[in-house]
Amino acid sequence: MSRIVEAQHARSEPLARLYAPVAEYLEQAEGILQREMRSRFPYVDELVRYGCLLGGKRLRPALLLLAAQACGRVIPKHLTLAAVVEMVHTATLVHDDVLDAATVRRHLATVNARWDTEASVLLGDFLFSHAFYLASTLDSTLACQLIGRATNVVCEGEIRQKGSCADFTLDEATYFEILEAKTAALCACCCQLGAHFAGADASVVERLTLFGRNLGLSFQIADDLLDVVGEEATVGKSLGTDLEKQKPTLPLIRALQVADEAQRGTILAAVHGQVRDSAATLRATFERLGTLDYTRETAAMFASQAQAQLTSLPASPAKEALHRMAMFVVNRAF
Amino acid sequence: MSRIVEAQHARSEPLARLYAPVAEYLEQAEGILQREMRSRFPYVDELVRYGCLLGGKRLRPALLLLAAQACGRVIPKHLTLAAVVEMVHTATLVHDDVLDAATVRRHLATVNARWDTEASVLLGDFLFSHAFYLASTLDSTLACQLIGRATNVVCEGEIRQKGSCADFTLDEATYFEILEAKTAALCACCCQLGAHFAGADASVVERLTLFGRNLGLSFQIADDLLDVVGEEATVGKSLGTDLEKQKPTLPLIRALQVADEAQRGTILAAVHGQVRDSAATLRATFERLGTLDYTRETAAMFASQAQAQLTSLPASPAKEALHRMAMFVVNRAF
Repeated sequence: MSRIVEAQHARSEPLARLYAPVAEYLEQAEGILQREMRSRFPYVDELVRYGCLLGGKRLRPALLLLAAQACGRVIPKHLTLAAVVEMVHTATLVHDDVLDAATVRRHLATVNARWDTEASVLLGDFLFSHAFYLASTLDSTLACQLIGRATNVVCEGEIRQKGSCADFTLDEATYFEILEAKTAALCACCCQLGAHFAGADASVVERLTLFGRNLGLSFQIADDLLDVVGEEATVGKSLGTDLEKQKPTLPLIRALQVADEAQRGTILAAVHGQVRDSAATLRATFERLGTLDYTRETAAMFASQAQAQLTSLPASPAKEALHRMAMFVVNRAF
Repeated sequence: MSRIVEAQHARSEPLARLYAPVAEYLEQAEGILQREMRSRFPYVDELVRYGCLLGGKRLRPALLLLAAQACGRVIPKHLTLAAVVEMVHTATLVHDDVLDAATVRRHLATVNARWDTEASVLLGDFLFSHAFYLASTLDSTLACQLIGRATNVVCEGEIRQKGSCADFTLDEATYFEILEAKTAALCACCCQLGAHFAGADASVVERLTLFGRNLGLSFQIADDLLDVVGEEATVGKSLGTDLEKQKPTLPLIRALQVADEAQRGTILAAVHGQVRDSAATLRATFERLGTLDYTRETAAMFASQAQAQLTSLPASPAKEALHRMAMFVVNRAF
């Protein structure tokens, strides 16, 4: 097992247990990823290898491989695709960190903190390009199409989210739509690729795709909650950036919905940075209004909807892992 | 003819004449590009349409279509690919403008000047993603592979260039290598795609690829020269950014090579911004040392090498256009 994967496992025993049915394949996908992220030019090599070191939960490759295993068996194509989806995901993270001016990601300095914005932009592009190239080395255009379409949706979602910043009239339905695009589409694609290339029939592929979509929604809502209530040391990335950027996430949207006039005023003043410790003020107000529980429950509801898609699959350790993963993403502290 | 293409033509009669043999196809490729760069969400739509409006010379689609026409005939696949290569190119430009903090591009405000850095990063990603997706809608993985590989090389070249900033020991050979990666690889890919999908045999595809590569080198050297001697109003983009960013380009590399001790001191002081009008000082020193002529001659040499690849092609208006295009990129004032 590589040092990187070891370090991840040490950080996160629960993940290692969840991923156990595909641990060996995950390791192989990691190898493909690391071989792709190299350059014969030392300056380039240092930067792009850092892109892999950023590590992370490897949730998307795990989803893809578990979906494959739950529907049939993992074939070499899955390993390549697992590397591809992680590269696409890392590209969006690296570019997100430019947008959020975040300094910590996956317990490491972000690329823009350690190098600069230029390096982040270029590393993200390198990751996107190598991901698409790697997908094109498979012998059908279907994988490229599914990944390309999912990435199109992700990019559109990211732009919509940017457009929604400081829009405190954003409703829940639109918020979910944006989450579906920016996060759930790629998770859905992972499960779709896993199931399809394991030879699952169309209805099973469809159910796994829905599993991924709902899990993605649940994951992102939990992420938005962590931005409010998480501990940076545990989560391993800069927090509080959503509210700093006036990004309307579910705790805030719900709070503005249920608040009375005076509470609304407090919330908006805090969001506009007009009170001393705006993060603590917001958190306390959210607690009082019950919107943190509401957010947690909403995440759990999508997780249940994800789990419901799995019922028709035959029992297997991979199916069991997918089932547990849906709840894990809600209850995680990182 | 669309208003955008009309505007470009008005700005640039010489281009219209050069592109005449494939004018109709270019217009169709433009239509594909514009249909792809849309969104049903108004905020997204405004941003991504601006990406097309940035217009430009459409050199890469023209190269692809002229290469196709010179080797056989243009088929629908070429039109899609022409849109794809322009989207990849525009993505790199939009991201370059973040890096260079440029404010004017193609006579319009850059995305980061009109919106912000976030918008530039996201628009570039949208362009990359849609380009790869569009390529995947063709019925073979070859196009995806060739474009993916070229884009990999472009990204590596961009990172190497960043690594070379403020490195005043960079030699010409390394400079050419970086140019080959960041600019020539995509031009080579355009000609390769054009020739291959026109049914040309391997040796012809190889020669056209070399044509594109040499034309790309010539183009980029001319671009580096324009950054020193061009007029912003004519070139239509922010100039002087190379030297501001201490990017060693051929005029500077050559000057440091041939300068005596005192001149070297003047040049380095100017590059470090330690003299009053550093741009004018550098330009005057470059003139005195003959490095601007040297740069122009080098660009012309690569253009000749490009033209030499065309000799075995049968005479045709498209071949003639490619031949003239090689010299155009050297002598252009924009």
